[in-house]
Amino acid sequence: MSIAPSQTALSGLQDHIRAIPLENIANIAKDAFTNKEILPLWFGEGDIKTPDFIGQAITSAMQEGKGFYSHQNGIPELRQALVDYLGKLNAKPITMDRITVTSGGMPAIMLAVQATVGRGDNVVIIDPVWPNITGVVRLMGAETRSVRMDLGDDGWTLDVEKVAAACDSRTKAIFFASPGNPTGAVLPVPVQKQLLELSRKTGIWIFSDEVYSRMSYEMPMVPSFSDIAEPEDRVIIINSFSKSWSMTGSRLGWLIHPPSLEATLAMMVQYTSSGTTTYLQYGGVAALQQGEDFVKFMTNYCREGMEIVCGALEDIPRVILRRRPTAAMYAFFEIDGMADSKQACLDILRSSNVGLAPGYFFGKGSESFLRICYCRSPEQLNIAMERLKKALK
Amino acid sequence: MSIAPSQTALSGLQDHIRAIPLENIANIAKDAFTNKEILPLWFGEGDIKTPDFIGQAITSAMQEGKGFYSHQNGIPELRQALVDYLGKLNAKPITMDRITVTSGGMPAIMLAVQATVGRGDNVVIIDPVWPNITGVVRLMGAETRSVRMDLGDDGWTLDVEKVAAACDSRTKAIFFASPGNPTGAVLPVPVQKQLLELSRKTGIWIFSDEVYSRMSYEMPMVPSFSDIAEPEDRVIIINSFSKSWSMTGSRLGWLIHPPSLEATLAMMVQYTSSGTTTYLQYGGVAALQQGEDFVKFMTNYCREGMEIVCGALEDIPRVILRRRPTAAMYAFFEIDGMADSKQACLDILRSSNVGLAPGYFFGKGSESFLRICYCRSPEQLNIAMERLKKALK
Repeated sequence: MSIAPSQTALSGLQDHIRAIPLENIANIAKDAFTNKEILPLWFGEGDIKTPDFIGQAITSAMQEGKGFYSHQNGIPELRQALVDYLGKLNAKPITMDRITVTSGGMPAIMLAVQATVGRGDNVVIIDPVWPNITGVVRLMGAETRSVRMDLGDDGWTLDVEKVAAACDSRTKAIFFASPGNPTGAVLPVPVQKQLLELSRKTGIWIFSDEVYSRMSYEMPMVPSFSDIAEPEDRVIIINSFSKSWSMTGSRLGWLIHPPSLEATLAMMVQYTSSGTTTYLQYGGVAALQQGEDFVKFMTNYCREGMEIVCGALEDIPRVILRRRPTAAMYAFFEIDGMADSKQACLDILRSSNVGLAPGYFFGKGSESFLRICYCRSPEQLNIAMERLKKALK
Repeated sequence: MSIAPSQTALSGLQDHIRAIPLENIANIAKDAFTNKEILPLWFGEGDIKTPDFIGQAITSAMQEGKGFYSHQNGIPELRQALVDYLGKLNAKPITMDRITVTSGGMPAIMLAVQATVGRGDNVVIIDPVWPNITGVVRLMGAETRSVRMDLGDDGWTLDVEKVAAACDSRTKAIFFASPGNPTGAVLPVPVQKQLLELSRKTGIWIFSDEVYSRMSYEMPMVPSFSDIAEPEDRVIIINSFSKSWSMTGSRLGWLIHPPSLEATLAMMVQYTSSGTTTYLQYGGVAALQQGEDFVKFMTNYCREGMEIVCGALEDIPRVILRRRPTAAMYAFFEIDGMADSKQACLDILRSSNVGLAPGYFFGKGSESFLRICYCRSPEQLNIAMERLKKALK
């Protein structure tokens, strides 16, 4: 083989990597990092700075010289703080050998997928869903299969029969988020139990994304999969400091996994990241130990945002919003007569300087939807909704 | 399929993941994080804290609210600072579209491997080499092939004929580090040119690990592969802030890549890490813009450490050290009559509380070697060498 002079180096990448679409929310939104006129409601990110007590814990750790390599599963202080934190919220205690600290929710998902899913395999994904899970499965050369939740007057519900029907002998995992992004939908315990039964019968992994679990407007924490699973069930729970502690740019998360995976995950952390920023992990300890008031503030901030946004949406005749979300930070709504959500987003961005995420990013069948993140100040949300009302007249 | 009740969840991982040895320097050295009696010379890490001006830049950025999601290829300020920094050191300018910021050198390597190497492929690795590259290739389900450098009175040299002979139609990349870890060996420009010719002829990628490039005792920077390659050559250069700026625990690095890969790497960053800690990247800007004195201090500190360690090693009759290293932070030496370097490391650790890394981690043929990291205070190194002299009597 010899390279033709006209070829770029891109031709040297693996075929399945080159086949992954490059478009995502972050690159549609590229200009938003600099254009201050745009109200950026497209990301899963609010406008609240990381609280000072977390920043101070990070700074102190840095000043104390906690800037060297550290444990691959996370510093013992943070793993212990997670054991204590989860012990207060969960029905069943989680032991330290089941916790691995990661550089955010995305690396947590990548580790789970990389450990279990290879080329030719598939992952069943419950959607509408955050697009990144599809991306990471495709990075492994594997296939994604979509099972769409049903939208009725009670909101989004999941039929586990449909999940079972989508699985085959190459299905390695079922992925879902509860509360969902973009739906805010919470999987009830009986549905979780059906999924666990399916996993036990088939050996298929459960990847439970619980990043929004503290952001329920109805309870302190939505039901965690860890409350029904046994330690050695094939269940991996993904969580992150990004949302409830406003640490999106920090990159800090954790996995709850079977204890038998502890050493393998340490090895995988070593070869993918060499561990999570050491001093940052002390910020995680502070977040867990001193952050309950902040977590409640964030949830309440989102609930208030939800009321402003959903109230306004309900006033726009073309908007279809079946039910107000009860958790997370998004409204996911349809616009009557709008089939191309990408074009709609670009139009709204151009005419109104409001950044929304197009529905087709969240799975097939969501092309007529838009996602708005309402974790923003009432002032900004009111302005955004005024602009939207005009744009969607 | 149904899971036997006796099985742990570990059996649900991919076969090639379970086949990767769990042993590495970090887990042999596990106790060292807490046992203060041990002189930990096994890691690729010194005892110098991250300099305050970098910590202050990180803290300021945090306080200014730079804690939100940011650009997938890195913040423009850091990419520009890298363009400026590299422009001063390299013969050819590097444009911003060729730079992607990563959460350390290891994620940089993982991105390069993940983009180009799949199951059934192989990577030719020039050793003795840092063991993590082998780990990341195996994570992808691919094979590693070793080409050992020759050790003579002139130190370690590479015969590119041997590299060419090790390549076949499934070879996707050739990996080497210059300066080498653990050898400190620098690849001369004519050898680099032969490797580039091989890449151009075969389409095989070059992964050039230049993490120690500023740590030469003979020149301001060892020759970079970017000085001989054209932008669209299949060349990816890996670098990191860990060593020259003493930022091991921070996790910050960068890639130099063909411009045609910029968008694909952004996509891959999104799905593997969602980007590098935002405020940390401002620390990288400070390191580049204000860090030249510190870089020189670190190199000099290592040179002094090298003199202490190599001087002492040369006094131990059983030790064979052909030539003092001229770069990086390691001495890699043989012990006459010692065949099992792991046992020797454990014995030395037990008898002397000195942590060394066993040679077999660095490739076949290195079983009779030990690696010592000399990026430590003269006081500590003198104590360590006194202990070693006794242990190796």
